[in-house]
Amino acid sequence: MVNKSTEIIARYQAIRAHSEKICVSLELEDYVVQPIADVSPPKWHLGHTTWFFETFILKAYQPNYKDFDSRYNYVFNSYYENLGARILRTDRGNLSRPSVSQIYLYRRYVDEQMMILLQQNNENQDFFNLVELGLQHEQQHQELLATDIKFILGHNPLFPYYTDEHVNDSRSDDSQEFIFLNEGIYEIGHQGRGFCFDNELGRHKVYLQQFEIATQLVTNAEYLEFVDSGAYTDFRHWHAEGWDWVKRNLISAPLYWHQVDAQWHSYTSSGLNKIIGTDPVCHISYYEASAYASWKGMRLPTEAEWEVAIEKLSWGLRWEWTGSAYLPYPGFKRATGAIGEYNGKFMVNQMVLRGASVATPPGHSRASYRNFFHPHQQWQFSGIRLAR
Amino acid sequence: MVNKSTEIIARYQAIRAHSEKICVSLELEDYVVQPIADVSPPKWHLGHTTWFFETFILKAYQPNYKDFDSRYNYVFNSYYENLGARILRTDRGNLSRPSVSQIYLYRRYVDEQMMILLQQNNENQDFFNLVELGLQHEQQHQELLATDIKFILGHNPLFPYYTDEHVNDSRSDDSQEFIFLNEGIYEIGHQGRGFCFDNELGRHKVYLQQFEIATQLVTNAEYLEFVDSGAYTDFRHWHAEGWDWVKRNLISAPLYWHQVDAQWHSYTSSGLNKIIGTDPVCHISYYEASAYASWKGMRLPTEAEWEVAIEKLSWGLRWEWTGSAYLPYPGFKRATGAIGEYNGKFMVNQMVLRGASVATPPGHSRASYRNFFHPHQQWQFSGIRLAR
Amino acid sequence: MVNKSTEIIARYQAIRAHSEKICVSLELEDYVVQPIADVSPPKWHLGHTTWFFETFILKAYQPNYKDFDSRYNYVFNSYYENLGARILRTDRGNLSRPSVSQIYLYRRYVDEQMMILLQQNNENQDFFNLVELGLQHEQQHQELLATDIKFILGHNPLFPYYTDEHVNDSRSDDSQEFIFLNEGIYEIGHQGRGFCFDNELGRHKVYLQQFEIATQLVTNAEYLEFVDSGAYTDFRHWHAEGWDWVKRNLISAPLYWHQVDAQWHSYTSSGLNKIIGTDPVCHISYYEASAYASWKGMRLPTEAEWEVAIEKLSWGLRWEWTGSAYLPYPGFKRATGAIGEYNGKFMVNQMVLRGASVATPPGHSRASYRNFFHPHQQWQFSGIRLAR
Amino acid sequence: MVNKSTEIIARYQAIRAHSEKICVSLELEDYVVQPIADVSPPKWHLGHTTWFFETFILKAYQPNYKDFDSRYNYVFNSYYENLGARILRTDRGNLSRPSVSQIYLYRRYVDEQMMILLQQNNENQDFFNLVELGLQHEQQHQELLATDIKFILGHNPLFPYYTDEHVNDSRSDDSQEFIFLNEGIYEIGHQGRGFCFDNELGRHKVYLQQFEIATQLVTNAEYLEFVDSGAYTDFRHWHAEGWDWVKRNLISAPLYWHQVDAQWHSYTSSGLNKIIGTDPVCHISYYEASAYASWKGMRLPTEAEWEVAIEKLSWGLRWEWTGSAYLPYPGFKRATGAIGEYNGKFMVNQMVLRGASVATPPGHSRASYRNFFHPHQQWQFSGIRLAR
Repeated sequence: MVNKSTEIIARYQAIRAHSEKICVSLELEDYVVQPIADVSPPKWHLGHTTWFFETFILKAYQPNYKDFDSRYNYVFNSYYENLGARILRTDRGNLSRPSVSQIYLYRRYVDEQMMILLQQNNENQDFFNLVELGLQHEQQHQELLATDIKFILGHNPLFPYYTDEHVNDSRSDDSQEFIFLNEGIYEIGHQGRGFCFDNELGRHKVYLQQFEIATQLVTNAEYLEFVDSGAYTDFRHWHAEGWDWVKRNLISAPLYWHQVDAQWHSYTSSGLNKIIGTDPVCHISYYEASAYASWKGMRLPTEAEWEVAIEKLSWGLRWEWTGSAYLPYPGFKRATGAIGEYNGKFMVNQMVLRGASVATPPGHSRASYRNFFHPHQQWQFSGIRLAR
Repeated sequence: MVNKSTEIIARYQAIRAHSEKICVSLELEDYVVQPIADVSPPKWHLGHTTWFFETFILKAYQPNYKDFDSRYNYVFNSYYENLGARILRTDRGNLSRPSVSQIYLYRRYVDEQMMILLQQNNENQDFFNLVELGLQHEQQHQELLATDIKFILGHNPLFPYYTDEHVNDSRSDDSQEFIFLNEGIYEIGHQGRGFCFDNELGRHKVYLQQFEIATQLVTNAEYLEFVDSGAYTDFRHWHAEGWDWVKRNLISAPLYWHQVDAQWHSYTSSGLNKIIGTDPVCHISYYEASAYASWKGMRLPTEAEWEVAIEKLSWGLRWEWTGSAYLPYPGFKRATGAIGEYNGKFMVNQMVLRGASVATPPGHSRASYRNFFHPHQQWQFSGIRLAR
Repeated sequence: MVNKSTEIIARYQAIRAHSEKICVSLELEDYVVQPIADVSPPKWHLGHTTWFFETFILKAYQPNYKDFDSRYNYVFNSYYENLGARILRTDRGNLSRPSVSQIYLYRRYVDEQMMILLQQNNENQDFFNLVELGLQHEQQHQELLATDIKFILGHNPLFPYYTDEHVNDSRSDDSQEFIFLNEGIYEIGHQGRGFCFDNELGRHKVYLQQFEIATQLVTNAEYLEFVDSGAYTDFRHWHAEGWDWVKRNLISAPLYWHQVDAQWHSYTSSGLNKIIGTDPVCHISYYEASAYASWKGMRLPTEAEWEVAIEKLSWGLRWEWTGSAYLPYPGFKRATGAIGEYNGKFMVNQMVLRGASVATPPGHSRASYRNFFHPHQQWQFSGIRLAR
Repeated sequence: MVNKSTEIIARYQAIRAHSEKICVSLELEDYVVQPIADVSPPKWHLGHTTWFFETFILKAYQPNYKDFDSRYNYVFNSYYENLGARILRTDRGNLSRPSVSQIYLYRRYVDEQMMILLQQNNENQDFFNLVELGLQHEQQHQELLATDIKFILGHNPLFPYYTDEHVNDSRSDDSQEFIFLNEGIYEIGHQGRGFCFDNELGRHKVYLQQFEIATQLVTNAEYLEFVDSGAYTDFRHWHAEGWDWVKRNLISAPLYWHQVDAQWHSYTSSGLNKIIGTDPVCHISYYEASAYASWKGMRLPTEAEWEVAIEKLSWGLRWEWTGSAYLPYPGFKRATGAIGEYNGKFMVNQMVLRGASVATPPGHSRASYRNFFHPHQQWQFSGIRLAR
């Protein structure tokens, strides 16, 4: 078990460091703001992921553990009703304190305590499971950090740069192909011994009708045809609620798209740039994804179709909206206690996204992963794959 | 085909008359009001169902048809974007005109024109299909009429009587039993030649895990235990959005429940009365149904489970919330034109209810029928069946 | 005192009858609706004015008085916190019961009881004062009845007729003149022994600078120049809050103005008609009145200026917005008890209007009368007089 | 005129430095947040006051002036419609950029340019008037800075310290006395050659009835009696809109008051401390001030009463709500152009406050100064003086 401990210590250090690396080019002010309720301040993410280790691990396994600051439970609890009162989600951006430097000190303090604990507790599987959950949780927040930073900078009238590293995520192959799968019984859900969330269990049979699924994601150039067709002013391909959303919010293109001198640009990590036609379209709501598919005479794949076809698909650049609502798998069981609030209580009014995106941290994607957001949300790195 | 025409004329007359019968004990003022957006004024239902025949049938099949009043398209169009501008849904209760008597004249006028047409067009299947759709549509509004009238009277501080006829819908048999179904492939979806809506097509295979389903609905007495357990002040069994809904709206019991002298009463068609423990609980939101099931350590059945088990269940007293989101069946196709807006565009953010209720008109229920409402809506005659 | 009793009985009967006369051409449905919070259903006005007599007079002076229906206190109390719980103002239009005919029976019942009391109590000045207050109160609601009925019919897409009687309120004399008043000490406030509200007391000295005030109201033709100048899209003459109001509500003309075939029409008691240029402009908010005056390089008169100049002005066609906020006069005292809620508690965030309008019942206007509404409200018969 | 230039340069430097001194103990994060719409981020104040000099002076008087950053006009324009589009007021706290250090550089840049200009333009009175306006404007924002910083820190769950300097503003003299003024003609409005805002002009006669006015402000101890009397749950002394405000916002004490261990504390610049009974009550809305006065059987003074009595009063610790609405003085004229938006367009729905407060910068108070806020606003250093 020494190996296990060594391995997890290395993993712990690498993952914790990665969160901070994401923030390295921020101005201190960028850590603080919350332009919309969905977007949390980066400093809150850094504090909350630390609070997760403190609350679920240090307080449980470290005898005589002394809080860094007992008031942080109120500040950094996200949604755990089991763990008491907490600030309103919409107030996260109103808190100037704790300061960023205090939060970095908090991270140092908790990391040190965790190091001690990790070196001691090398035979307790429950403990290792919780550490693993904490790391997976931190990785989820790494993606949110990237997503929220983009929103914060991309909604600033000065359109600041985030990085000069350009991520090339264009579709290498220009041809859109569909692969065919026969009707029949398939299996979905997590398998193997690796980590997964409770919502991916248990593996079970599903019956699928025959279908075809695209091997590539829809590109900006393809989506632009939809925009240019007047789709945002034509109710026909939209859900009723999607159409209300378009009109109420004056939506006329994906998030971050701006017309400059009659040409479409989008905000990227290196500022406002012309749209690259071969890139997969990004920052699309479910309403838009579904309307686009309908306009093409097709549909979105279900999550089961996606999972059974995944080996033959090119994926990982965008979270892919599926046509499946986020619901429990057969036999789904929540964990007991606060951890049981992790997934189950969100299983209503959301749609499943599958895959991963350019913002997903390395090693945090797998075929059975179930991401989920509300149909109107655009701020994720979300795109479209077609089925029929 | 003479028989078909004769038969459909009788059916037309009976169904049209039934809508008016539902309103027979109303005061004229009861026809006018709209206490919440979900509840339409009874006179609007009477006009809208008539407008449906006028718009989709008389204008299409009656050469030189003359509108009763061309401005009614604006007033009585519900949600058909294809058919032009219409009053905001929330403004229906602000319209004192057309008056109730004008709307009854409108019904007479359209009925006369329909009679002529029905006697003439006895060989056109498309025409008969549309007439059937119009009648099914009117039956759906008959249930809404009953539901909305209950809301209007039940939210009046005078708690008026609607009728002296008491509907006995108590569970005859006191024992709650569960039947067991094996895992395997089943088929669901409409079959046979009778009428169905587009959302029930096409019949297809599903794979179900083994499950048990209750033969009876949950009663008031059983639900009262949940209430008395403090469930409305304990977050643990609720969806996060359900818990927000409870707190924001100060929900503490099913709709129409009132405590009078420390005893639970509910508003019924004959005023405020003590709750009958053996009646199936009614006017329950999905959030409540789901929280109740969780509190019992069980869950709601999926719509597929419900449909394959239905022959062995006692049903028809309450619409039964299922754990299935309202989504298209494999191969779902919307009709073209305005009729295509009937079902498909609502397939997001709603949950499926199966069965029928005491307010469902005779002959309007079948095993494959898919009703759907938002998770927070309580005003339907909705109840709970458990599965595990 | 017999004369006093006879006189007040006649007055009581005439005023009570006048309220019902205002409603005589309504359809029953028109009595029920409440399109906006400011507009009460006509049946509510008929009930509320009756409740006022029942509550403040019959219950106080009639020994063993038996309520018509004890639940009406909840339904017809407007805003008297002293008198207990009441329905939300915005729910008045959700109540189909009590029905119109019940409310007319309620009026009959209270009138009969009042007749008995009026014939008996002929020597009690407090009693007569309350009866007079009840009658003045009913007259205020007569104006509101006319105003609210216009709103209900004028916002119906069928634009129904209310009456064929055309009220000619055009400015007889085309010339706009200004009269000049010297600076100095003047007196304002109610004088004499006639009835007045508490807010008109007590008469007191004010010091006015020299000023000029228009003898006539601003006409539609004059206001149209303002509209045509683009004033509704030019912030310069508006209060900041007025400009927000214009933009948020997409205001582009006075209430009830519609462009039909590129010509301005307005809804009147006889339907939609071309605007009459010589009529005083009507249904103007304070924001509009103030912006118009500013655009003319003038201002609105203060209420003191208005009152001291009144004998030389032509008035009574429109309530005239003044530049004075609604505040207590020096030495203002509220009455004790519920009646004390009549005026004083509204003395914030409202502007004073002076004069009277075509909807004011005969005998209900005087120079010292202080009407008051919020700056954004357009639904009154309100117009503009200029000063400088 | 060299003296004038020298004097104004010194004044410019002192005032500009004072703004930065107010912020000296802030953490950088404190500069960024906007917990409610009324509260602007400190960095925004620092940028906006600088923008004021850049926009109205440097761009007008410095030939070939080069903007520090042309996009700042969008970011730092507060409400000047004349000067084009600007971010929504409620979005100020969503902007992480420009960073605090950039804004300090902006201040340096503009200060240098102003120095050059101030040394050159020593004979242009219009120029000096604008500089003076800019300085007065900056002083107004110094008070807002102090007010907003208190709100930001005082609403943080960690209740951070701002300073260790304790301001002793207790009433030295315990006795509450009233002075009496006779009825008659008085004069109010600015006099003399010193600076004033347009809303203080021109001096004019008013007629006042005899009145008495308290020499001292109401203290915490006195106000606590009102709180303890149950005033926040008793409608009788409140305006109708004030009562709605109390109930909707669950107000039960002045802003910053908290009960800790059954004892009233308030947040101060040195954290949460027990209330000092002899301090004047602070952070009171107009609704509260008015209700308190009514509960005492008195009223608030009008602004004219306040101004004519001022020489005999002890004042300057709290802004004092008056019973006067904020309206133009006789003959009020707005300046032309953007500067004309400074005061006039806010003259509706606000109440006048007179005096000054502990947060008012030195040299920024005078007897004719008219401050104004909405009746519900508590976040100012506002208190109560009684009259009768």
